[in-house]
Amino acid sequence: MERRKVGILGATGTVGQRFIQLLDQHPWFEITWVAASDRSAGKRYADAAKWKLDTPMPARIADLVLQPNTPAANTGDVPKIIFAALDSDIAKELEPQFADAGCAVISNSSAFRMTPDVPLVVPEVNADHLPLLTKQAAYTSKSGGYIVTNPNCSAIGLVLALKPLEERFGIESLFVSTMQAVSGAGYPGVPSLDILGNVVPFIKNEEEKLQEEVGKLLGSFNGNGIDMLPAKVSAHCNRVAVIDGHTECVSIKFKKPVTREEILAAWAEFQPLAQHHLPTAPAHPVIFTDAPDRPQPRFDVGAGNGMSTTVGRLRECPLLDWKFVLLSHNTLRGAAGAAVLNAEVLAKMDLLPGKHLHTKTGAGLAENELVNA
Amino acid sequence: MERRKVGILGATGTVGQRFIQLLDQHPWFEITWVAASDRSAGKRYADAAKWKLDTPMPARIADLVLQPNTPAANTGDVPKIIFAALDSDIAKELEPQFADAGCAVISNSSAFRMTPDVPLVVPEVNADHLPLLTKQAAYTSKSGGYIVTNPNCSAIGLVLALKPLEERFGIESLFVSTMQAVSGAGYPGVPSLDILGNVVPFIKNEEEKLQEEVGKLLGSFNGNGIDMLPAKVSAHCNRVAVIDGHTECVSIKFKKPVTREEILAAWAEFQPLAQHHLPTAPAHPVIFTDAPDRPQPRFDVGAGNGMSTTVGRLRECPLLDWKFVLLSHNTLRGAAGAAVLNAEVLAKMDLLPGKHLHTKTGAGLAENELVNA
Amino acid sequence: MERRKVGILGATGTVGQRFIQLLDQHPWFEITWVAASDRSAGKRYADAAKWKLDTPMPARIADLVLQPNTPAANTGDVPKIIFAALDSDIAKELEPQFADAGCAVISNSSAFRMTPDVPLVVPEVNADHLPLLTKQAAYTSKSGGYIVTNPNCSAIGLVLALKPLEERFGIESLFVSTMQAVSGAGYPGVPSLDILGNVVPFIKNEEEKLQEEVGKLLGSFNGNGIDMLPAKVSAHCNRVAVIDGHTECVSIKFKKPVTREEILAAWAEFQPLAQHHLPTAPAHPVIFTDAPDRPQPRFDVGAGNGMSTTVGRLRECPLLDWKFVLLSHNTLRGAAGAAVLNAEVLAKMDLLPGKHLHTKTGAGLAENELVNA
Amino acid sequence: MERRKVGILGATGTVGQRFIQLLDQHPWFEITWVAASDRSAGKRYADAAKWKLDTPMPARIADLVLQPNTPAANTGDVPKIIFAALDSDIAKELEPQFADAGCAVISNSSAFRMTPDVPLVVPEVNADHLPLLTKQAAYTSKSGGYIVTNPNCSAIGLVLALKPLEERFGIESLFVSTMQAVSGAGYPGVPSLDILGNVVPFIKNEEEKLQEEVGKLLGSFNGNGIDMLPAKVSAHCNRVAVIDGHTECVSIKFKKPVTREEILAAWAEFQPLAQHHLPTAPAHPVIFTDAPDRPQPRFDVGAGNGMSTTVGRLRECPLLDWKFVLLSHNTLRGAAGAAVLNAEVLAKMDLLPGKHLHTKTGAGLAENELVNA
Repeated sequence: MERRKVGILGATGTVGQRFIQLLDQHPWFEITWVAASDRSAGKRYADAAKWKLDTPMPARIADLVLQPNTPAANTGDVPKIIFAALDSDIAKELEPQFADAGCAVISNSSAFRMTPDVPLVVPEVNADHLPLLTKQAAYTSKSGGYIVTNPNCSAIGLVLALKPLEERFGIESLFVSTMQAVSGAGYPGVPSLDILGNVVPFIKNEEEKLQEEVGKLLGSFNGNGIDMLPAKVSAHCNRVAVIDGHTECVSIKFKKPVTREEILAAWAEFQPLAQHHLPTAPAHPVIFTDAPDRPQPRFDVGAGNGMSTTVGRLRECPLLDWKFVLLSHNTLRGAAGAAVLNAEVLAKMDLLPGKHLHTKTGAGLAENELVNA
Repeated sequence: MERRKVGILGATGTVGQRFIQLLDQHPWFEITWVAASDRSAGKRYADAAKWKLDTPMPARIADLVLQPNTPAANTGDVPKIIFAALDSDIAKELEPQFADAGCAVISNSSAFRMTPDVPLVVPEVNADHLPLLTKQAAYTSKSGGYIVTNPNCSAIGLVLALKPLEERFGIESLFVSTMQAVSGAGYPGVPSLDILGNVVPFIKNEEEKLQEEVGKLLGSFNGNGIDMLPAKVSAHCNRVAVIDGHTECVSIKFKKPVTREEILAAWAEFQPLAQHHLPTAPAHPVIFTDAPDRPQPRFDVGAGNGMSTTVGRLRECPLLDWKFVLLSHNTLRGAAGAAVLNAEVLAKMDLLPGKHLHTKTGAGLAENELVNA
Repeated sequence: MERRKVGILGATGTVGQRFIQLLDQHPWFEITWVAASDRSAGKRYADAAKWKLDTPMPARIADLVLQPNTPAANTGDVPKIIFAALDSDIAKELEPQFADAGCAVISNSSAFRMTPDVPLVVPEVNADHLPLLTKQAAYTSKSGGYIVTNPNCSAIGLVLALKPLEERFGIESLFVSTMQAVSGAGYPGVPSLDILGNVVPFIKNEEEKLQEEVGKLLGSFNGNGIDMLPAKVSAHCNRVAVIDGHTECVSIKFKKPVTREEILAAWAEFQPLAQHHLPTAPAHPVIFTDAPDRPQPRFDVGAGNGMSTTVGRLRECPLLDWKFVLLSHNTLRGAAGAAVLNAEVLAKMDLLPGKHLHTKTGAGLAENELVNA
Repeated sequence: MERRKVGILGATGTVGQRFIQLLDQHPWFEITWVAASDRSAGKRYADAAKWKLDTPMPARIADLVLQPNTPAANTGDVPKIIFAALDSDIAKELEPQFADAGCAVISNSSAFRMTPDVPLVVPEVNADHLPLLTKQAAYTSKSGGYIVTNPNCSAIGLVLALKPLEERFGIESLFVSTMQAVSGAGYPGVPSLDILGNVVPFIKNEEEKLQEEVGKLLGSFNGNGIDMLPAKVSAHCNRVAVIDGHTECVSIKFKKPVTREEILAAWAEFQPLAQHHLPTAPAHPVIFTDAPDRPQPRFDVGAGNGMSTTVGRLRECPLLDWKFVLLSHNTLRGAAGAAVLNAEVLAKMDLLPGKHLHTKTGAGLAENELVNA
């Protein structure tokens, strides 16, 4: 089977590197194009990137020449599938250019997450929001391009744990207090003088993003847009001296009485993508541990190849109904892995640009099993 | 002025060392007796203790010989004022022996904190609970001894920030998520393999202690016992890779609408001990910082010589009313400093054992200004 | 092919856990017996061990019942191959008992490393020392048991880097300054209060071990014992806040002038075990990196599945001849992996106890290709 | 007594902040001028600086307006004494401008340390090199300005420990392996992704600086220039996860046999500045600890208010003669404190610009007691 050509915008950064790590051996996709800022364009990837992963830089990628990061400046073959790992303000400018040029932009940036016609998707949670992309001007125009986004790294692990509970019990309100890893801030990111032996109880715009993205992710697609989940969400976001893995303390109030067993069953039975055999989807999106002091980043961050959320310490909350702790890998599940999984679902739904894409209509998508899931 | 003789139970441990650091130059107290477990009794202090503070071990203390940790095993002069830094199960056995022997046991242990006739006190918060000690059997007996306790390290900073709010607005419910320093677990305490680059979302019994101690500390003394504050409290307790300083994220619901200015005023004007000139009391028990990313352990833990709570990030809570972050030094304000301050207040209230103590009655105490404060 | 039964002494500790991790899927060996101290014997492994690795505890091992740690106390089937991960003083007592009982004791302890008739071996470096085991009383007696040891974790990575240089150029003297990971001290090991934001420039007996073990490892087997390499070695050993991976700064004086290219060639061509296809042997025992700031624990500790030494920063030394930095995984290559590799070599040399072992003589061993290597 | 006006170049950086911390209450100097890059000039200090010290920013400094960092761009009163905390390439351009304008530039930069007519000084070590400044063109011209430098942070602690040994025994050769704190790299400096749970065995140009600066510092002033100490020095420099405090492992060869007692005596009796009562000079520049595992950054970095070097673990070296460990505070003694102490010595030697400076001659300086010390 031939692999589809994909490109990576912002390929030298922390998330860009994770894209390369995840896509280098991907069965469906093949990296043929990497782009970076003007300063790096024209250099070999290996000469421009400070590789910060604990697996080696793939040799084939090392030799790729970094391309300019606009469609206009590219004279050669820009793939129709673009994974974007750009800072938000740059994304705001560049991503629409690629969408207008007919590309599927699978973005990790926050720039368009809350834009009404842009799907904000975690496949296990709300793959049925993806047809929203057909409302985008780029898509309905001749180009057929679009932007699809995944949430903030602190929101992804959370909504995975919440979705099976929302489905069965309804969520009324929610507290979440996070302890987030430094890799979430990119490279160079958090100075060591700020975090060694320290906690920073503030991450710019993070609480706002977390609070609003949960509402959209757990909301419903009404055919034209997303109806937000009306649950109240209050977030406290903190940075701690951890490399990878966001830990989150959650207290939750449901719409009806719920037992411990019902919650455990909801998590255990949550396998919405199981029948689709997606390469990056974990067998168990939510894994419960009954060890009294887990999950912990050092031991649990790699669960499900870094794509599962681990939950633990389920106990009654004196204020709301239940409380628990969750852990999610912030640069795998929380960033690059989330985008790759979005692309895999788009492929299954036949929504990726290619020979037959433009003949698809929004209506046709509704018949797709994933959309109906 | 002559200094009163004091002794330290558990003198070699982390909190015992802080007692020594704080009391070595104390204007009112003089350490004349240090005790440790059977294994160490008989040794020079310097030979038995692994000193883990960043100020040198006082030379005079280094040469003291460690005494046995029961009154019965001591043949010499046991001071009437005992600061106790024992593990809870040992405290349960030993502290009553010293109280029965006529000692004021100023304890940092959790063993008797929730015992109905034992005061659990942070002087700025509830010095008026101290006369409860006169209900203890040891006190009313010939001996005149008693036990007074200070709260868990995670509760002290919290109630300091809460007390001025409770006084003015009434607290209905409370969510608190902590990130606690490793020194709170003593020495050797937390293994480095468990906490380097990690978060441990569990501290044994800590959430329970925090939840119940807040109720007693903010409760009221009815002449016979303490009426607990009926506020709902939900705690999530976590251990992080910080040496000293517990950071806590708090969301709070008041009994009536409160403005930001009213909260800031309540904190700024909270100086209940100001007129008493206690050596260890900070000028400002609660210090507000308007830096967007503070308080942080690395920069703020030493505020007020480690005796002040720093609060920051006051903002509205989408779920309750307001949220903020606080930081408190866990082995100074949160342990040894708390006990020393309790002793200073007891001295001011003329409740420390000595020539005139036994002539005092509980009734007489009611006239004391501190009690009425 | 049937796998040989093996047992693990000290199975619950840090190194014991690594043995389990490495041996659980081993093609030649099968764990059938795990033992621990009296306190744990009789318990399920999962109930007694605090698992501290980032891969899950193998389910089959979790259910094994811990056996007593002496042959005498074992009534059932004790395997003839015992991997031992005991503290030194306990090893001194227990390992000879198993050797006397006819077991091959593959030990990670320091207890017998410098004993004249005990091989101290890193297979790539001095597999030809292994026949020394035939001089042991246990072996020459009817039992056929013996003790074979691997070096201290700080010595293993070093001698791997040194061996190809010693072979080609001769080493006259050596300076090594280490920065060692906390996992080297076991669990609970180094208290976090001692190492967070800190360096401890002392590890008990470590410098002595490192200095003397290098001499034995790089020495030569004269048929009766080991002639030590007469090079002068000076070690400074330090503990740093790293989980896994010992970093070592080395300056070295050779017996003759050597160029940079010759050193790089010696390292690159060092593959003494290549033709034996041992499961745990890395393809490249010594890997050179030309990045200016590598090796680093966070990025290079897993090289060769944690069995390779990474060297870098090769440059001239103003005092001796050359200097460089090396990094080695201290609980894989530096402990459990070293012992497993020793066992694999012993198997290849037909020196492991079993149906035909006792017919072998020391003389016969000399014909083995590994011995001649 | 009136305090002399001083200015700070690079006032917002890590070292600049230390200058402010040390000089704010200085009895001899008063900060009247702070300068920063064009980007910050014109702003209030408090608005431009990210204050990273654990004592509060002095209120008086917070309100100072940052001035341009060239004499030409300053219209107002530039003090004649300038403490400079600039990056090396900027220092190379700006410091001579201030010297030409008649300022004493007390520099912490590496730009001119090895320049033949620029004194590189640690007062306890080589205050007698200071008259070298009279050879500078700026000084001999009408302006009377000059540049005086202090060494690299890793060299200062080292030469303090070496000087008393060099004086008495003569040093032939030297190994030093450092473990350096992140504050040495300034702010933002070392990214947390590079150092959390890691060691970086490389600091750009650091080994070269350390090796050559030791030769100049321990060299002798021949009336026209500095004769370098001909000892061989080999340095390995590493970055570790420590906030403040460089730890260094040293092996040393002397010109004659030396006993442990002689070394300890040399350190204990080393008090070359004692009679001068300089505000920033520690009573004991070198403090020996006989604890087996000290010095350690966490416990010893504050010795002598951060101005003393702590040495420990003195033991014989199998390769050279003796080895030991030293610790020095890298931003106090190793940077700002070193410069302030240089200024104090210059004041004592009457070499600071002022009403009578220009009447002094280089010859006259030779009579100064410090020069003769």
